[in-house]
Amino acid sequence: MTPDPVPAVPTRVPVALEGRAYDILVGRGLLAGAGERLAALKARAAAVVSDDNVAPLHGDALLASLRGAGLRADLVTVPPGEGSKSWASLARVCDAILGHRIERGDLVVALGGGVVGDLAGFAAAIVRRGVRFVQIPTSLLAQVDSSVGGKTGINSAHGKNLVGAFHQPSLVLADTALLDTLPLREARAGYAEVVKYGLIDDEAFFGWCEAHWERVLGGGPERDQAVAQSCRAKAAVVVRDEREDGDRALLNLGHTFAHALERVTAYDSRRLVHGEAVAIGLALAFRFSTRLGLCPGQDARRVAAHLARAGLPTRLAEVPGGAGTPEALLDAMAQDKKVKDGQLTFILARGIGRSFIAPGIAAADVRAFLAEAFAETGDAGS
Amino acid sequence: MTPDPVPAVPTRVPVALEGRAYDILVGRGLLAGAGERLAALKARAAAVVSDDNVAPLHGDALLASLRGAGLRADLVTVPPGEGSKSWASLARVCDAILGHRIERGDLVVALGGGVVGDLAGFAAAIVRRGVRFVQIPTSLLAQVDSSVGGKTGINSAHGKNLVGAFHQPSLVLADTALLDTLPLREARAGYAEVVKYGLIDDEAFFGWCEAHWERVLGGGPERDQAVAQSCRAKAAVVVRDEREDGDRALLNLGHTFAHALERVTAYDSRRLVHGEAVAIGLALAFRFSTRLGLCPGQDARRVAAHLARAGLPTRLAEVPGGAGTPEALLDAMAQDKKVKDGQLTFILARGIGRSFIAPGIAAADVRAFLAEAFAETGDAGS
Ligand SMILES: NC(=O)c1ccc[n+]([C@@H]2O[C@H](COP(=O)([O-])OP(=O)(O)OC[C@H]3O[C@@H](n4cnc5c(N)ncnc54)[C@H](O)[C@@H]3O)[C@@H](O)[C@H]2O)c1
Ligand SMILES: NC(=O)c1ccc[n+]([C@@H]2O[C@H](COP(=O)([O-])OP(=O)(O)OC[C@H]3O[C@@H](n4cnc5c(N)ncnc54)[C@H](O)[C@@H]3O)[C@@H](O)[C@H]2O)c1
Ligand SMILES: [Zn+2]
Ligand SMILES: [Zn+2]
Repeated sequence: MTPDPVPAVPTRVPVALEGRAYDILVGRGLLAGAGERLAALKARAAAVVSDDNVAPLHGDALLASLRGAGLRADLVTVPPGEGSKSWASLARVCDAILGHRIERGDLVVALGGGVVGDLAGFAAAIVRRGVRFVQIPTSLLAQVDSSVGGKTGINSAHGKNLVGAFHQPSLVLADTALLDTLPLREARAGYAEVVKYGLIDDEAFFGWCEAHWERVLGGGPERDQAVAQSCRAKAAVVVRDEREDGDRALLNLGHTFAHALERVTAYDSRRLVHGEAVAIGLALAFRFSTRLGLCPGQDARRVAAHLARAGLPTRLAEVPGGAGTPEALLDAMAQDKKVKDGQLTFILARGIGRSFIAPGIAAADVRAFLAEAFAETGDAGS
Repeated sequence: MTPDPVPAVPTRVPVALEGRAYDILVGRGLLAGAGERLAALKARAAAVVSDDNVAPLHGDALLASLRGAGLRADLVTVPPGEGSKSWASLARVCDAILGHRIERGDLVVALGGGVVGDLAGFAAAIVRRGVRFVQIPTSLLAQVDSSVGGKTGINSAHGKNLVGAFHQPSLVLADTALLDTLPLREARAGYAEVVKYGLIDDEAFFGWCEAHWERVLGGGPERDQAVAQSCRAKAAVVVRDEREDGDRALLNLGHTFAHALERVTAYDSRRLVHGEAVAIGLALAFRFSTRLGLCPGQDARRVAAHLARAGLPTRLAEVPGGAGTPEALLDAMAQDKKVKDGQLTFILARGIGRSFIAPGIAAADVRAFLAEAFAETGDAGS
């Protein structure tokens, strides 16, 4: 394996949104310089939002860096996990931000995984009708996906992410060294989203993943490359379609299945975390595409085989405690926002790197496919 | 008095915001045609948000009109009053909107005063990261002020309107006939905001108010004119400065005092409603301007005299239960968002129709002025 030097300059991925352009910086050790970079944004104070796992690991370093650069800095934490994307946490975080006297020119800083990023970003969007915020994503999933693109929000009793705002960060600092404390299970989950970018429209990147996944999970320089490439891929889509009126929906590849699985497992991370649900969702999306006669079976098998090799689940049978029934999953999909006139919109694929938006998929076809998927017990390559 | 015919066509006040231009329609009897106008916006469903005072009076007429035009329509109500601009009401309203299966193309409709408009507008801004909404303001204050301009939000423990979003409506229907059920006290409160537009930059309109206020409060055609003129005035400011980075702050004339008064009276509408606080605030802003040597004393006396004649309070002594102490009011102002580096920003005036933004007002000057204002017991013209 090649050594893992701290690069002199981080990789810069610009997000060229008109009027709200910002940079994603990717590299080891960025946290130590966070204070200087935030001071350059001309804020006088920062409210750092984190969770009770991440704050003890990296909170002090961030606060020290911010204070060292002359910023007033305070911390508010929420319990780890999806349960914190709730009304109660939102109210508490907004009140804490206001209590820390964050004004229009100041900053909210999200230090954590996707949960913290979504929650803190939403709080920043609505406190004083919008204050600026900076993402310091600490999970692989957050570095390659949730911290980019400005979607923020919480969950409602009616489903995931149903309440929120589009609010672009002013800066994203993806310090890959922070990933060294991430549990392997979470790293794998984030890796599912990395693979997704290859599957959407970049077969070469998927091939690169097949060749380098061990070093990505192992924390080699390939991990930095994977993060930067994923950010580039997501940024390109977001710039084309910020509000998801069109193309951006491709980023939902695998997610109609994934969200339904998260729903039937009650968002219980002991059973399934988001990235694991996405891994199963990606495998199912390709198999469903094959079943509809759209995609060569060997592509679907190649997708499932790679995810499985990386330690990710790819079949309904692998959901601890079971994935419910075809009807329950279909119901859960119907609650999702990608439903129109009783028909379902899926992201399907004509092959690896050849995804497309498929509206008007009949519920009957989904039901039949799910029945099959529940029945099979073979291995991932089946 | 001139008769009050239903005009064949309502008065149209365009709000020329780029990309989000919309119309305010002002006239008697617009509610009956609401269904048709909303159907023209191509929504399939509408969630109507109202309060428990307004819904029994006008809710059925609106639902009938919507359903008559082929829209699916459902109602959710909150208790009347400022207390409903809360996290709890927001969560409940968002959940209800989602429960009524409002999707991206559908509509949230606010039928009520400023409280309902601010709450429903905010809910619309964040449900599914933004659905369209229509304002049907039913209080004079809402028709002349809060329904125009896209500011939405709720209150926090740290102060009024500290959590919210800019979310422009797709249409505002100001049916002035709905004001016929409004209690006189609320009509007067709304009238304070009408007067405000004259005071900001339109001395002629203030003169018109002095001549016609009885017919405005009495529900004559002058009321329609006052509503339309107020909407025009506010729309002009909003189009110049949607996000309140500059000029829009002029709309806060009287409001630094007003918000502090609302705070020290614990937002208790039995003691003070917003427009009453604004009336006192307007009078104080002019007297403070006079005290600072900026504004002729006779202008300040003319302002207070007119508001008093219209039945509005203009002095701290008129606050039921008292307005606290100078220090308590100053504290309440310091919590307000118009504070920077310990100094206060006020909207002051060089005369009627000659308001301006005055940053850097020393707390000592405010304190001294308030001490005086607390001491005096004379009548409004003093
Ligand atoms: N906004 C978007 O565009 C978007 C995109 C994808 C996913 N998401 C959201 O992101 C969330 C999932 O994100 P996630 O997987 O990061 O979940 P998460 O935030 O719950 O983090 C996963 C776990 O890892 C822990 N953790 C994070 N960083 C760590 C570190 N450096 N060291 C040790 N532990 C660490 C967390 O405390 C948590 O227990 C979901 O809510 C999903 O809806 C949002
Ligand atoms: N968004 C903005 O730009 C903006 C501007 C100004 C004020 N506001 C907000 O508006 C709110 C005040 O608005 P408001 O004065 O309309 O208060 P409100 O909504 O509480 O209405 C006042 C009272 O009148 C009742 N009512 C309303 N219409 C009625 C009708 N037609 N018949 C009988 N009763 C009726 C209500 O039930 C309530 O009891 C405050 O929360 C203030 O912060 C917002
Ligand atoms: Zn995802
Ligand atoms: Zn007001």
